Formats: sequence, structure tokens, C-alpha cells
Amino acid sequence: MDLSQLTDRINTALAPLQYGEQPTALYEPIRYIMALGGKRIRPLLTLLGAHIFTDELEPALKPALATEVFHNFTLLHDDLMDQAPLRRGQATVHEKWNPNVAILSGDVMLVRAYELFLDVPTELLPHVLRRFSQTAAEVCEGQQWDMNFETETEVSIAQYLDMIRLKTAVLLGFALELGALLGGASRQDADHLRQFGVGIGVAFQLRDDLLDVYGDAATFGKRVGGDILSDKKTYLLLTAQAQASESQRITLLQHIGQPVADAEAKVQAVRTIYDELEIRPQTEALINDYFLDALQHLERVAAPETRKKPLRHLAMQLMEREQ
Amino acid sequence: MDLSQLTDRINTALAPLQYGEQPTALYEPIRYIMALGGKRIRPLLTLLGAHIFTDELEPALKPALATEVFHNFTLLHDDLMDQAPLRRGQATVHEKWNPNVAILSGDVMLVRAYELFLDVPTELLPHVLRRFSQTAAEVCEGQQWDMNFETETEVSIAQYLDMIRLKTAVLLGFALELGALLGGASRQDADHLRQFGVGIGVAFQLRDDLLDVYGDAATFGKRVGGDILSDKKTYLLLTAQAQASESQRITLLQHIGQPVADAEAKVQAVRTIYDELEIRPQTEALINDYFLDALQHLERVAAPETRKKPLRHLAMQLMEREQ
Repeated sequence: MDLSQLTDRINTALAPLQYGEQPTALYEPIRYIMALGGKRIRPLLTLLGAHIFTDELEPALKPALATEVFHNFTLLHDDLMDQAPLRRGQATVHEKWNPNVAILSGDVMLVRAYELFLDVPTELLPHVLRRFSQTAAEVCEGQQWDMNFETETEVSIAQYLDMIRLKTAVLLGFALELGALLGGASRQDADHLRQFGVGIGVAFQLRDDLLDVYGDAATFGKRVGGDILSDKKTYLLLTAQAQASESQRITLLQHIGQPVADAEAKVQAVRTIYDELEIRPQTEALINDYFLDALQHLERVAAPETRKKPLRHLAMQLMEREQ
Repeated sequence: MDLSQLTDRINTALAPLQYGEQPTALYEPIRYIMALGGKRIRPLLTLLGAHIFTDELEPALKPALATEVFHNFTLLHDDLMDQAPLRRGQATVHEKWNPNVAILSGDVMLVRAYELFLDVPTELLPHVLRRFSQTAAEVCEGQQWDMNFETETEVSIAQYLDMIRLKTAVLLGFALELGALLGGASRQDADHLRQFGVGIGVAFQLRDDLLDVYGDAATFGKRVGGDILSDKKTYLLLTAQAQASESQRITLLQHIGQPVADAEAKVQAVRTIYDELEIRPQTEALINDYFLDALQHLERVAAPETRKKPLRHLAMQLMEREQ
């Protein structure tokens, strides 16, 4: 199981997918966003989940693509809602076309994602679609919480962790569960893999929060300190606010939610408080908790250790990434 | 088969549907739009389609609701794209909440529509979902064409008829096909019912165009002449443009696509040209063509005449409506 070979296989299967032709304003944006690339982690997880139980990956391929199409649908609509100008360095769909095109081509992507599941063996189909639908609704819930948090003054750490679980982690969990089910796993093993995926997903997102502040500008894909500059209520900021002394609290209030006079100074001031409060080691400890908990679920899956290795390898890669 | 009893049964089944609870900004708009009412024509068609083949309507009820939830999802997103302030006399979701809420709660409605199909007997499920997905994509195509036509100068009558077929008629056709399949019909009979529904749907939409110009202001739900005032490229206008004499063409150009100085005068001037060109009887003839063609498909369905009566009765009602 070579991960880059598997990614090639996914991209080779994605490329010829037909979404529709006319009107072009409906279908061209779908081809555009799908061609922007990305690491294809969700279909990769589905194939690795299946591979634990079978060598026959072909039947899992199309459903694996469904998770990628769905993921890109969420990016398309989220970018519109967040008014993001760029996605993977290219213009977002609502910028390149217009908001209405982004709404409607997104809607069709969701339909096409469902269609890609329809080759799942009939006896599995109701369960797979029920689990997918629940996951899809949860991803929307996560996005709504995320938008709510922008204007709410009181967000608890528990609420934040639940938001990233819904917005990011449950889809990673579902991608693995789907692969397991298609590979012939028991419901119990499929659920362990789901929980493994959810844990990895939360850890992955927390690591993203950490890299935003402590990442290497040269290797991290985004501008370091971007979350601080946009007052994003990350785990780091919420923890700092909860643990701040009176004077630190005043410093935070001077910077968070205020017009930015000097970007460098703002990032530096907030990072200094993070350092004083040891937010970095605290975040790393939480990431480690989620990671170890996730690995325990992988342990419990009834399959030989050698079959689990590629998946553990991918999880490690995701955790150690610097970008 | 009493139609108003059947509508009550649909509304009784719709009322307790659970879409989700938290966050409320995601789920409250769904309850809101579903409670705005409407004639519930699509689930009615599903139940009447099933009733041709079986007395056991219970298994068709939940899938019937799926078509209504899907229809309301399209209204929610279309109202946002069209920037419509009102829906059934009440504020639209994007007005009452905001555009992002309309996007995201619409997305969840599409997911919930798919979920409502999952109780369909497993052996029918892949076919039903393939047909539904194709229909859903076509409805989006229709909406995209409709938006395209607003800015296109050259729209043919054939293009217009295809647009209303996609945007409105195919879902009515699918609702009937779904009922037939759930009632145990052959694929052939289900397809005849689908074609019956598509024909009725196009005829229904053409009648809507006609009522906008020639309807009774007291009974027609909308402002008479609204399509003329908004320069909407309806069958009436496109036909008039195609058949206009040189002087009529000049008069049309003075009114269509120009700032409106006197609304009454504009409606009157365009209607005079319609009268001169006998657009009304031409439209009525086309409606009749679609209606008779639809009825022939109903004839071909292999079921006793008495079983088809309620459906024919509903189709007649839809055709004769003054609002």
C-alpha cells in the first residue's frame, strides 16, 4: 500500500467523472473546483479503511470519490459564506463566476455525491446512506456553529472542540467507516475506525490551530498569525482567555476585536501571552490525548497489525505535517 | 380517494418531521418554510400514483414527503438567488435570517430529502435514488437556464419550453413515477406516469404564464402583468417577438428592457400586441396539446379506469385553476 500510488489511483478515477454538460455555468465550476487538487485525504482514508479487510479495492473506489465530491461541495459553499477570495491559491467559484453560480453548482455537487454512492452493494446501501446523511448534516451544523462563533462573545472550549469535530472530524470518520463497511468489516469494527478517524480529525484541526501561530512561515501554507489577526476563536485563544491573569486579560482585550494598527505587533503581543501561559505545550498535550485515544480504537479493530500499518502511517504523516 | 383528505394526511405526516435541533439558525428556517403551507401537489401526485396500483398508501407516505422537502429546498435557494422578498406572503428565509443561513439550511434540507427516501424497499432504493438524483440535477439545470435567460438577448421558444420542463415539470413527473414504483407498477407504467406528470407540468407552467397576463386580479395570487413589468421571457413574450410585425416589434422594443415610466401603460401596450397576434388562443392551443399528450400516457397505463380517475381529476383541477 504505497500512499502516493493510491493517491494517483484516486486522481485517475476523479479526472473522468462526468458531472453534466449544459448549462456550462452549472457544471464548469464543479470541474474547476475538483481540478484544484488537494491531498484527497478522505478517499484515501476510505481505501485504507477497506484495505484493512480486503485486497479488492475497486468496489470502494467510486464511493470513496463521493466523499471527495461532498468535501469539495462544502468548500464551495463555505467559501461563499465566508467570502473567501482564494482556494488553493486560485479564485473561488463565487469570485470567478458569481454567488448564484456558487450556490447552484454546489447544490448539484451534493446530488452528484449521493449518486456516486449508488453502486454500493444494495444490502449495504440504506445503512451507508443513512450514515452519510447524518454526517453531511453534522458537517453543516459545524459550519453553522463556526459562523455563530464569529459574533458570539462567550464560546466555551467544549463548544469549540465540538464545532471542529462536526465541521472537520466526522467526515474523516465517515470516510474510514465507509471503507470498512465496503471491505466487509463488522459494524463494530467499522465504528472503531470511525472513532479513530474522528479523533485524528480533531487532533489534525488542533494542530492546524497550532501551526497558525507556531508554524514555519516557509513551510506552512498560510500566513503565520492569520488566526490571531482575524480574532479567530481557536483552541489557543479560548484557552488563553480562560487562563489569563488580570493584566494578560487587559492586553488581550486591547488586541482582540479591535482595529489592527500594527499587524506584527498584534501577533507578537498575543503570542507572548500564549508563551507565558504555556498554551503551546497544553495544545500539544491535548493533540496527543486525541491521537492516543484514536490509536486505541485502531488497536481494537479485529484485523492483523500488518493490515493497519498503512493507515497508521497516514495518520502519523498528518500529525507530523508542517504545512 | 378524496383529494382534500389526502392533503390532510400529507400535512399530518409533514408536521412532526424532525429536521434537527441545534444550532437553531440551521434548523428553524427549515421548520419555517415547511410550515408556510402550499398545495402539497408533489406528495399528492406520489400518493395518487401509488393508489393506481395499490390500496396500501402507507409505504409511499414518507418518500412522498421527500419530494415536498426537496421542492421547498429549491424554493429556499431559488428565492435567495432571485432575491425574492416574499414567499406565500411571508418573508423569505434569506430576508428573515440572512443569505448564509438560507444557503446552509437549504443544504441540510437536501440531505433530509434524501434521508426520507431511505425507507423505500431496499430492492427499489438504487433505482429510486438514481431517478431522484437525475431529477434533482435537472431541476438545478432549469433554474440555471432561467437565470441565464434573464441576461440573454436571444432565447428560442424551444429553449424556453425546455427550461420550464426542467425547472418545474420533471419533478412532478418524478413524484408520479415514484408513487407508481412504490405501488408496484412495472417500469413501463411508471414511465408513462412520469411522462403524464411532465406534460401536465409544462401545461401548468404555460397556464401560469397565461394567467399572469389574462388572469382575474381578484383570484390570481400575484399581481396581473407582473411578468410583463419584469420583462420576463415567457412563452407569450417570446412568441409575440417571433411573430411581431415591424411596427409591433418597435413598440415591444420601446417597452421591453426599458425603464418603466408608467406600469399600467406598459402592461396595456404589451397586452394589446398579444391580442393583435392572438397569443392567448395560441398559448391555449399549446397547453391543450401538452394536456392531451399527457392524458394519452395516462391511458396507456395498464390499470382499470376507476383507479386513474382521482389522478385525472387532480390534473383537471390544476388546469382549470384561476389562481
